[in-house]
Amino acid sequence: TTTHRIALIPGDGIGNEVIPAARRVLDTVAARHGLGFSYETFDWSCERHARLGAMMPDDGLDRLRGHDAILLGAVGYPGVPDHVSLWGLLIPIRRGFQQYVNLRPIRVFEGVPSPLRDAGPGDVDLVVVRENVEGEYGEIGGRLGRGLPEEMAVQEAVFTRRGVTRVLDYAFSLAERRGGRLTSATKSNGIIHTMPFWDELVAERAAAHPEVAWGQEHIDALAAKFVLDPRRFDVVVASNLFGDILSDLGAAVAGSIGIAPAANLNPERDFPSMFEPVHGSAPDIAGRGVANPLGAIWSAAMMLDHLGHPEAATRVTDAIVAVLAKTPVRTPDLGGTATTEE
Amino acid sequence: TTTHRIALIPGDGIGNEVIPAARRVLDTVAARHGLGFSYETFDWSCERHARLGAMMPDDGLDRLRGHDAILLGAVGYPGVPDHVSLWGLLIPIRRGFQQYVNLRPIRVFEGVPSPLRDAGPGDVDLVVVRENVEGEYGEIGGRLGRGLPEEMAVQEAVFTRRGVTRVLDYAFSLAERRGGRLTSATKSNGIIHTMPFWDELVAERAAAHPEVAWGQEHIDALAAKFVLDPRRFDVVVASNLFGDILSDLGAAVAGSIGIAPAANLNPERDFPSMFEPVHGSAPDIAGRGVANPLGAIWSAAMMLDHLGHPEAATRVTDAIVAVLAKTPVRTPDLGGTATTEE
Ligand SMILES: CC(C)[C@H](C(=O)O)[C@@H](O)C(=O)O
Ligand SMILES: CC(C)[C@H](C(=O)O)[C@@H](O)C(=O)O
Repeated sequence: TTTHRIALIPGDGIGNEVIPAARRVLDTVAARHGLGFSYETFDWSCERHARLGAMMPDDGLDRLRGHDAILLGAVGYPGVPDHVSLWGLLIPIRRGFQQYVNLRPIRVFEGVPSPLRDAGPGDVDLVVVRENVEGEYGEIGGRLGRGLPEEMAVQEAVFTRRGVTRVLDYAFSLAERRGGRLTSATKSNGIIHTMPFWDELVAERAAAHPEVAWGQEHIDALAAKFVLDPRRFDVVVASNLFGDILSDLGAAVAGSIGIAPAANLNPERDFPSMFEPVHGSAPDIAGRGVANPLGAIWSAAMMLDHLGHPEAATRVTDAIVAVLAKTPVRTPDLGGTATTEE
Repeated sequence: TTTHRIALIPGDGIGNEVIPAARRVLDTVAARHGLGFSYETFDWSCERHARLGAMMPDDGLDRLRGHDAILLGAVGYPGVPDHVSLWGLLIPIRRGFQQYVNLRPIRVFEGVPSPLRDAGPGDVDLVVVRENVEGEYGEIGGRLGRGLPEEMAVQEAVFTRRGVTRVLDYAFSLAERRGGRLTSATKSNGIIHTMPFWDELVAERAAAHPEVAWGQEHIDALAAKFVLDPRRFDVVVASNLFGDILSDLGAAVAGSIGIAPAANLNPERDFPSMFEPVHGSAPDIAGRGVANPLGAIWSAAMMLDHLGHPEAATRVTDAIVAVLAKTPVRTPDLGGTATTEE
């Protein structure tokens, strides 16, 4: 058996509770499926920032480079500005390792009621494919006239043909393997330079994937449709910002923010990919051992799939489905009283 | 009685059905409350664009300038790119007349079920205050290398101290007059130049409005909370793009996109303000006389309020509430069979 080298970055808050839980699941899977994992744990976090003045060491990316995958818990702590903590750890990894696909599956599970009247188990089963390294999250921009009446801030969104095309191709291929339907999130009626460009590239890539039935929706209308009729969606492809919004919204619609996983993929495998639950560090409940580990466990399942073990991955997601459908075990975020450990 | 000079721009599609309905309501209100309205109707639309090559004449803004308010139906027609139709009519009016507040009330009405299990009449009663003339909807930006592999598009978002401060002050004052709670939509963890600036200005204006309890949420988490717990919100203040998304999402959560109104306000009254339903031109149902006129009628009520007739405005919104709660009359979008006329 090959041994997969996994970098664990528990990070902040409940990251330190859910990553050990996910690791136990991985070890069980390893034993049953004859897989090997070796782990290296990194203490990169806001706590490290407080101690040493940086979220990770200068050569952080180099230390991760030799690993086959990264499993990350959560980043963020009250008092440390988000644009310090996140831009010192999460974002540099996404960008440095060209993890240009952020994949976020969203499902309604039996035993986890959706807040929508009309969405039962199986009704909602979609994937948000989010562009993850360019777009609206720019480092380009700044301030003019700090403190003066004429002060202004500018922020440049940059969309490149190469960057958009590759994530679209990923999304179209995924749609081919799934239900064959794709929806593109746009806002070309308001954002008149970048979004019409996005739309053009979608039409171009659609021509290269003729089996996929596709359409586009402006982000405002699309957000509304996520609530009014989520079952109509299969693969939803979106820019960095729109994908961020839609994936949280989708998880809320499915009643499952504590369960939702994310994969930050470098599809070419030039660099390690990173897997992380969607929930944040949740400082309000951290340290009490009641965090929901299912987001981290489902993320670990996505990692198994990426590492070439789709069967093992399916066993893990099946186990999540079974626990929710057939047992009363659930953490407080889902209305239960279970601990992370249970 | 003073006569208010109203500019009517029915626009495209169902705009031509809902504006006449709203006008009939205004005439009834005028008779009962001793008000006077004179109307001038403008045929500015995609149909005009097809005929004359422009959505409105060159001196369009000048022709509107002498009016006390503008009542607009909807803009947009299949085949005319949105960034042509909207940037040729709606956006120039918003910007030219410094209608920097876009006000969108959202309520759950008795008789109009929310798609959420848990949101009954009265539970959701919030207002989105959207910055309406700057921010992410920029004209600044463009393309490099059209058609080449290295092609890119850039879009500059510009936030000014003056532009943000004035809409924040409007929102804080509104929160003072309502429940006294304000939520600011941000994304300062991802959009690192403009959104931290927005947050700073919110904190500054909050200090000037100490009676208002306020907080901020990242747009991804906020969109999720609109679904998970909409009743916690009172006044929500947001940038141009975030306000656009939240107001459509909010209307969906309330089950009432066909009812939702919007006011594009120039609070200083240097220029006419504009009132328009949130629903679009709906080409799929246009011409059949079944469009829901309540969005346009509620918009007309907001216009009455702005023109200094809050009592008349309340009579109109009370009538909307009564029709929905006490009669079976509703248009197909709300599951009924009524015509616009009924
Ligand atoms: C049509 C479009 C430009 C517009 C906007 O985004 O402002 C619309 O969605 C709205 O909310 O009035
Ligand atoms: C924390 C933040 C920068 C991040 C993002 O917006 O990308 C988060 O919301 C996410 O979705 O992973």
